[in-house]
Amino acid sequence: MFAPIYFDHNATTPADPAVIDAMLPYLSTQFGNASSRHEYGRAARRAIDEARNRVATALGAHATEVVFTSGGSEANNLLIKGATACLKPGLLAVSAIEHPCVIKPAEQLARRGWTLARVAVDAAGRIDVDDYAAAMAHKPRLVSLMLANNETGVIQDIEALAGRARAAGAWFHTDAVQAVGKLPVDFRRLNAAGVHALTLSGHKIGGPKGAAALIVDKRVELEPLIAGGGHERGLRSGTENVAAIVGLGVACQLAAERQAALAVDLGQLRGKLERGLLGLGATLFGQAADRLSNTVYFAFAGIDGETLVGQLDRAGYAVASGAACSSANPEPSHVLRAMGVAPDLARSAVRVSLGRGNTGGQIEGFLGTLQLTVGRLQQLTAMAV
Amino acid sequence: MFAPIYFDHNATTPADPAVIDAMLPYLSTQFGNASSRHEYGRAARRAIDEARNRVATALGAHATEVVFTSGGSEANNLLIKGATACLKPGLLAVSAIEHPCVIKPAEQLARRGWTLARVAVDAAGRIDVDDYAAAMAHKPRLVSLMLANNETGVIQDIEALAGRARAAGAWFHTDAVQAVGKLPVDFRRLNAAGVHALTLSGHKIGGPKGAAALIVDKRVELEPLIAGGGHERGLRSGTENVAAIVGLGVACQLAAERQAALAVDLGQLRGKLERGLLGLGATLFGQAADRLSNTVYFAFAGIDGETLVGQLDRAGYAVASGAACSSANPEPSHVLRAMGVAPDLARSAVRVSLGRGNTGGQIEGFLGTLQLTVGRLQQLTAMAV
Repeated sequence: MFAPIYFDHNATTPADPAVIDAMLPYLSTQFGNASSRHEYGRAARRAIDEARNRVATALGAHATEVVFTSGGSEANNLLIKGATACLKPGLLAVSAIEHPCVIKPAEQLARRGWTLARVAVDAAGRIDVDDYAAAMAHKPRLVSLMLANNETGVIQDIEALAGRARAAGAWFHTDAVQAVGKLPVDFRRLNAAGVHALTLSGHKIGGPKGAAALIVDKRVELEPLIAGGGHERGLRSGTENVAAIVGLGVACQLAAERQAALAVDLGQLRGKLERGLLGLGATLFGQAADRLSNTVYFAFAGIDGETLVGQLDRAGYAVASGAACSSANPEPSHVLRAMGVAPDLARSAVRVSLGRGNTGGQIEGFLGTLQLTVGRLQQLTAMAV
Repeated sequence: MFAPIYFDHNATTPADPAVIDAMLPYLSTQFGNASSRHEYGRAARRAIDEARNRVATALGAHATEVVFTSGGSEANNLLIKGATACLKPGLLAVSAIEHPCVIKPAEQLARRGWTLARVAVDAAGRIDVDDYAAAMAHKPRLVSLMLANNETGVIQDIEALAGRARAAGAWFHTDAVQAVGKLPVDFRRLNAAGVHALTLSGHKIGGPKGAAALIVDKRVELEPLIAGGGHERGLRSGTENVAAIVGLGVACQLAAERQAALAVDLGQLRGKLERGLLGLGATLFGQAADRLSNTVYFAFAGIDGETLVGQLDRAGYAVASGAACSSANPEPSHVLRAMGVAPDLARSAVRVSLGRGNTGGQIEGFLGTLQLTVGRLQQLTAMAV
């Protein structure tokens, strides 16, 4: 079977074979409902308890701070809607470059009496310090800022930002979906700096789709988004997806064990890729900022990103033209617009996100293909003008 | 390995081998994010489209009416919170015997300006016609009544009930999680009778945990519970759990193909079990009502249900003392209380829910074990008095 080279690890990752092996029994013989009071149920409950411990250990949290959800979008919605439901309406601050699953619930709240501050970023994609200070001066009740951006890979100084939110009296949440596995992420340390809640997702770190977690300081009162049988300390009802939760636990453990070495390896590949891209005349986004070592976001001016992604796909390279989750929407990236990138250049954006298994040979092959493809598209564009 | 005999199919079911086989590629090589615009993404999207068609065909719905969720609890919360968010606060009617994942969101709404009517049931667990008529006279905006009860198996005359709700101008939702696979369930027919939305869940019908669907008439305006990237026509954001959705599709197809024959087979086993239980002096709940052919809910007066379940577990039989989802809660069943069962007898309740693979020999063995166990517990009770 023809298997294209996968350069889209920020969209999703292949599950690690160890993750799949750990999940399989819970898809077949160990099929119990973890709430059942018989051996099938107890086996499922033990598996969930073990997974919770693995997640907690990998993230530097206590097991009782881990709330399993079906995905990062659910975890972000749970925190934002759940925390605000227990507060008097006031100011909610999120950055302009958050994932839609933070921005959209924030916009829903803005229609229900909350005031929404969209904190600006600078040209490199970092939180604008003055704009953030201005938002904090208005005493927000909740702040949500992502740890690392899915499109640019730009990393925020979350500890410093959380400290300022704490001084303003706010709950502080960080969407760490793209950070976990790529950076050291320690909830105890973040919590000490003022972070009260953190979102992570299994399928971004070699785990399965369908399992994620909100790590949350128990002082944060939350109303459940999914109310019912009272699972997850009453914060998330519904029969637990045992197999996926088991997979998430193993994936978190592996991600923590591998993170440091993987970051070095991917950083070297990224360097090779970026040198090649600059040699071909590409613009790199977020270059001035501290970025995830696996993410390269670039554009060839005048060449449509979607078109380039399509050509690369036919040539056997799986890359993204923007955040996969909003690919249904042909608008230029809201992240690039927030960074002040002109709409035309933003429409040219292409993202390569590397992961385990990618090699230097693949980067070289990709650069060769890109040179030919970009050259051809530039000729077509020149002829059309 | 010692494998207890599984008599708890209303809590969850083993996944069918065909379901697991269909899922496996999407856990490993076909790992794409369905929103990605490359071959990995398109393969995932095709799999979801095919699963949506399978669910729609099995349920007599159109594919565009199927909204995938992570579970039945999420689907019920989505409908109840999502529909009411688009309506002016008014009356919401649910029955007293709904699953907690209907009752709890209804109670959340009751704290937000909605009036909650809890429709009574008769001694057999059927909706009380007079109480229902009284609720309809107050013109509810939304009605949610389950098709078949998870504890008693009692089936409601949903078409007639929905017709009365439609006459009152209400949206009508039915939680069909326990009905699908056990009864013929046809959304087109139900829709014609006045049902606007229906919930089903994969893991109750030989599918995986982590995938379920809300089948919803497109006239019903819904606010998403999980907002974000705009997946599922904007009604449920979040990276799709492709493998679980694929498994749900296959499970729905198999359930529809097998339903009629399975109902006959399980009905015969149930008859055998009930005759034996009555011979041992058990009380059967809901006996006067039309019930699912797989469900037997019984009690031996004076014998604690939890204790009996524990003894049966040690003897190799997996049964439930109440709804698995609220087993964390030692209160007597709210379903039995609504039926007017005395709390002491309700605390004695034990549920056997049969499924594919159960045999007459297992029923005979179970009745023998039950006779010994009940006899021993009755002696202990007599000695303690």
